[in-house]
Amino acid sequence: MALNTEQNILLLVGGVGGAKLALGMQAILPPERLRIVVNTGDDFWHYGLKICPDLDTVLYTLSGRVERSQGWGVANDSTTALEALRAYGEDAWFRLGDKDIATHLLRTDRLRRGWTLSQVAAHLAAQMGISLQVMPMSDDDVPTLVETVEHGWLEFQEYFVRYRWQPTLRSLRYQGAETARLSQAVAEALAWASAVVIAPSNPWLSIAPMLHMTAFRQALLARELPRVAVTPIVQGQAIKGPTAKLMRELGLEPSPQAVRDYYGALINGFVYDLRDAQVQPHDKRSAAFDTMMVDNNAKVRLAQDILSWLAEW
Amino acid sequence: MALNTEQNILLLVGGVGGAKLALGMQAILPPERLRIVVNTGDDFWHYGLKICPDLDTVLYTLSGRVERSQGWGVANDSTTALEALRAYGEDAWFRLGDKDIATHLLRTDRLRRGWTLSQVAAHLAAQMGISLQVMPMSDDDVPTLVETVEHGWLEFQEYFVRYRWQPTLRSLRYQGAETARLSQAVAEALAWASAVVIAPSNPWLSIAPMLHMTAFRQALLARELPRVAVTPIVQGQAIKGPTAKLMRELGLEPSPQAVRDYYGALINGFVYDLRDAQVQPHDKRSAAFDTMMVDNNAKVRLAQDILSWLAEW
Repeated sequence: MALNTEQNILLLVGGVGGAKLALGMQAILPPERLRIVVNTGDDFWHYGLKICPDLDTVLYTLSGRVERSQGWGVANDSTTALEALRAYGEDAWFRLGDKDIATHLLRTDRLRRGWTLSQVAAHLAAQMGISLQVMPMSDDDVPTLVETVEHGWLEFQEYFVRYRWQPTLRSLRYQGAETARLSQAVAEALAWASAVVIAPSNPWLSIAPMLHMTAFRQALLARELPRVAVTPIVQGQAIKGPTAKLMRELGLEPSPQAVRDYYGALINGFVYDLRDAQVQPHDKRSAAFDTMMVDNNAKVRLAQDILSWLAEW
Repeated sequence: MALNTEQNILLLVGGVGGAKLALGMQAILPPERLRIVVNTGDDFWHYGLKICPDLDTVLYTLSGRVERSQGWGVANDSTTALEALRAYGEDAWFRLGDKDIATHLLRTDRLRRGWTLSQVAAHLAAQMGISLQVMPMSDDDVPTLVETVEHGWLEFQEYFVRYRWQPTLRSLRYQGAETARLSQAVAEALAWASAVVIAPSNPWLSIAPMLHMTAFRQALLARELPRVAVTPIVQGQAIKGPTAKLMRELGLEPSPQAVRDYYGALINGFVYDLRDAQVQPHDKRSAAFDTMMVDNNAKVRLAQDILSWLAEW
């Protein structure tokens, strides 16, 4: 059922929402036609482990081991270590499944031996049987910091997991984005791509970290090619997570158009949801598909819709 | 059933064998009369985790959570993370139980925050409900290195676990022992003790790392007090582990007397096993007890025998 295409698709993703479209694209594209760049702004050190939530979500999803009920973590994982930590009186607020810990242990081990995060991601992907390239946006740290009304500046996972994105967002900082270097894999992928697709991930939390990287943005804009984003907002709501809440806190109306405006000149095409037909401009660079990806069929259908649209660019 | 004693017992231990005597002593001494110094020569970093096998064995034993069938690890622990590591193609040769991993995570986290290993050990002991002081021999690293005929120099755990102490030992190095500093806890304990007892742990692998520390040896010899060792060799055999094999490889006959000679002037008393009555000298500084500690009663009895003997020093 692989699509007969000559396009080289570079997909930019965050976590759960991005992984859904990645799964849809993986189902129809041959592995040599799809590369995936993953946000690392969420990455952090926790109990001595290097944790990359978005990379893991994408790898677990593409390899079929994700816990489907939540869209992240390993299916049927136990939490024996986590419970033992809590029995030691620890406020262990980040969920560490036992199988998941193995991923963190392997990654931490390799980083300490001098591997790059790109090398670790490629190794993990291979060990999970994933044949397409999945790469972190950079091997340099670009941590997202969140300024909140209630707690001041928070590390991303404190904001997102510990406080469950309930604090009111005041501003965001993508620390190190100006100086972070492109990895060889990302540089090659940006030169290789015939089209760039931004998944319906949170633009501010999942996609902005890469687009704020000076080196990434410059390489992206250096080439003439379709650069399209899929709306994460449908009928004024986020499908999942804090996108709509965050937009309101930033003084924006939660609408597809506000997302399109936020991406600005970094994109030259935009996918609305069918349900927002009334707000969708009718021009060649706007499309409207079912973006909700409620099941695997819907993921594949959205991927096919996007690829067909790009084929007629 | 606490012994009516005015003695302050400082017990020097390695792993499994030492922990047995520690448990016997804990059963009869009030917690303020017993402090335990634990070998850290076995400590190592593994998959980004700081692992202290002997400290953990002692803490698990004293808190009643040890897996009794083997004498180390947490009882009824699962190995979900370890199996997941192996599924990633890892040669995960060091057993990491899931509950055990929680101990390593907590320790690694605290060390990264600047705690000393002594502080971590005290915190873990308190969290496990242990009321006596259990301390690492130093907060500085003193890793034991093992030169083998077959593989050259090995890190201790490679020799001991990966190769199951099968390689032929050529020599040992206690790296950093000359310069390692006494922790405040160990310095205080050496000043506080009215008697020092060396558990029937492996003299070369478990006890020598501390005795080779210049600062430790000097503080130990600075005071006039009983310093007695319990034989780890009974009828030419080690009760457990490589002591007898190692002695032969070092050109020594596996006998209690050879162990006594090895400790030399660092001890001034020695406990033989009853079964070795024919080799035991009959003087005030030699004793013979049942040292085998086959069950909890035997552990308590040996502790009582030693304490009674020391009371008449």
